[in-house]
Amino acid sequence: MSDAFQPKVLALAGGVGGAKLCVGLSKVLGADELQIVVNTGDDFWHLGLAISPDVDSVLYALAGLNDAERGWGRAGETWNFMAALEKLGAPTWFKLGDLDLATHVWRTERLLQADTLSDVTAELARRLGVARRVAPMSDDAAATMVDTDEGRLTFQDYFVARQCRPRLLRLHFEEASIAEPANALVEALHSPELQAIVLCPSNPFVSIAPILALAGVRSVLEQRRAPLVAVSPIVGGQAIKGPAAKMMAELGAEVSPLGIVRHYGTLLDGLVIDTQDARLQRDIEATGCKVQVCDTIMRNEADKTALAQATLDFAATLRPRR
Amino acid sequence: MSDAFQPKVLALAGGVGGAKLCVGLSKVLGADELQIVVNTGDDFWHLGLAISPDVDSVLYALAGLNDAERGWGRAGETWNFMAALEKLGAPTWFKLGDLDLATHVWRTERLLQADTLSDVTAELARRLGVARRVAPMSDDAAATMVDTDEGRLTFQDYFVARQCRPRLLRLHFEEASIAEPANALVEALHSPELQAIVLCPSNPFVSIAPILALAGVRSVLEQRRAPLVAVSPIVGGQAIKGPAAKMMAELGAEVSPLGIVRHYGTLLDGLVIDTQDARLQRDIEATGCKVQVCDTIMRNEADKTALAQATLDFAATLRPRR
Repeated sequence: MSDAFQPKVLALAGGVGGAKLCVGLSKVLGADELQIVVNTGDDFWHLGLAISPDVDSVLYALAGLNDAERGWGRAGETWNFMAALEKLGAPTWFKLGDLDLATHVWRTERLLQADTLSDVTAELARRLGVARRVAPMSDDAAATMVDTDEGRLTFQDYFVARQCRPRLLRLHFEEASIAEPANALVEALHSPELQAIVLCPSNPFVSIAPILALAGVRSVLEQRRAPLVAVSPIVGGQAIKGPAAKMMAELGAEVSPLGIVRHYGTLLDGLVIDTQDARLQRDIEATGCKVQVCDTIMRNEADKTALAQATLDFAATLRPRR
Repeated sequence: MSDAFQPKVLALAGGVGGAKLCVGLSKVLGADELQIVVNTGDDFWHLGLAISPDVDSVLYALAGLNDAERGWGRAGETWNFMAALEKLGAPTWFKLGDLDLATHVWRTERLLQADTLSDVTAELARRLGVARRVAPMSDDAAATMVDTDEGRLTFQDYFVARQCRPRLLRLHFEEASIAEPANALVEALHSPELQAIVLCPSNPFVSIAPILALAGVRSVLEQRRAPLVAVSPIVGGQAIKGPAAKMMAELGAEVSPLGIVRHYGTLLDGLVIDTQDARLQRDIEATGCKVQVCDTIMRNEADKTALAQATLDFAATLRPRR
C-alpha cells in the first residue's frame, strides 16, 4: 500500500445529483486530493452488455458530455440503434443511445477480457478526458434487489422498467454485503490525508446504501478519523430529481432532511440542507448532527462549485462524533 | 430427418453479389423450395460482438434493408456509435453503423446464451421479415485465414483493415475443414426434391470456397444427383464488385469465366456467363461445362429475378457430369 492514493476527500456518489456535486468537488479540489467512489448496485447486464449507470453518469458529468436537460445519458444523443433494436422485437425498456453504446461496448469487451471494473473505469475516465480519480465501489457483483408489493424485482426492473411504480417494501444488498470494496475505496478510507468523507446528494436508499453495505465499509466508517458529511438530496419535502421522496415515504421515513439524518444515524457528523429547510436545523442538531444551511440546488456550474466549497468548508469545522 | 426441409434449390452465397441473386431466387421460388446457405468464413468477434458479414448482407438484401448504393450495410445508416467509439480511442477500421449494431448486439447476446448460429440466423430472418430459409454454412468456427506477402492475416484484417492491398499467396480453410456443415446444408444436399445447386456470383475464393471446404461437403457434391450451376462473378475481365479479380490474378488464375470454370473443375455442370463474355462459350464448353449466356449484371429487381429465372431454367437442362 506504499503507493496507495491518499486523497483528502472521499466522495461517495450515485446518479445525477451525485454527479453534479462531483463536478463541483472537481473544481475546488486538485486531482491528487479527491477520490470519487460510485455506486454499482444499479449495474446490470443487458443485451449482453455490461451497464454501469451511475459510473457513467459521474464520468459523463465530469467529462462535460452529459445531457443536462434530460438529466441522464449523453448530450447530442441519438437513438437509431434503439429504433433498429425495437424493430427486431428486442427489449427497449432500457434506453441505450448510439453514443452511450460506445461506452457499454467498450467496457463489456474489456470486462470479458477479465479486466477489473476499477481498471476499466479508470481507463474509461482517461479516454473521456476526466482527470479525476473515479472508481466503482467494488469490482464484484453487488446488485441491489428490491422487494415490492409486486414481488422481488431486480433494481433496473423496479427503477427503469416499472419506473418505481410498485410500492417499495424493502431493499436488499446481499450481494454488496459479500462484495469486496474496490481498492480505491479502501485506500481512501485509510488515507492519512483524509479530511472529509462526503455523501453526495444521491438517493440514500439505492445509491449510497449499497456502498455502505459493502463488506467491512460500515465498520471502517464507524471508526472514521475524518468527518462524514452529507448533502441532503431532499429539499422542501421533495427529491430534486428521481424517486427518493416516494421511496422514502414508502419506507416509512419522514420526507425531509430530518428523515435523511435519521436514516444515516450516527454515521453522519454533518448535513448540508437547503435554505428552504432552514427551520429544521434545530431538530436535526438535536440528534447530534451538525447542520450547514445554504443553497443546495445546482442549476449551473457556479452552483456546483459553491455547494462543493460550502460542503468542504463545513466539513472542516466538524469532528467525527464516534 | 423425417421433418427435414426438402428444398428444390440450394443456393450457396457470400456477400453482396450473392445476396442479389438470392433476392432474385426468392422471387421465382416459393418459401418451401429454396434453401440459402451463407459463407461464415468471414465471421469474427470484434469489440466483443459476433459479426457475420455475409449472413447479414443476405438477410438485409432479402429484407429490403440493404444500402444498394454503398453496397454493404443498411440503408439510412448512421454512424454516431462509431464516432463515439473513435473518441474513446477504440478501433474503428471495421465500420459498425447504429442500425447494423442492433443486429450484432442481438446476435451476440443469443450466441452467448449458447444458441446455435443456425437458430439465431433463422430467428433473425423471421424478425427482419425474411420469409426464406437462410442458414449459415456451419454453427462451428470456420474462420478463413490469408497468407500474404505481409504474412498470415485473419480474413477481416486482410479484407477490411488492409483492403486486400497485400499480395495474396494462399487462402487457408483449416477451421472450415473440421467444421460440421450446418443441418440446413446437410438436409438440402440430401433433399430428394433437389433440382439445382446454385453457386451465386460471390467471390469463389473467399465466399464459396469456405462452404466447399466444410467437412464432407465436397464429397457429397462430387456424388450430387442435382446439377451444380454457377453464375460467374467475373464479367469482362473484372469483378462486378469487390476484389475477386485482384485475388484471382494473384492466385495465378485467368481473370475470366474460364478461370472460374478451371477453379471449380468437375464440380461445375454449368456456368452462366455475361453476354460480354459470350466469345468464351466454346472454350468453356470444351472443358465439359455447359454455358448459358445472358445479362448477368443485376442493376435492379427485374435484373435479379430474370437472372435467377435464367439460371434455374439453365439448370433444368443439365445433368450432373460425374
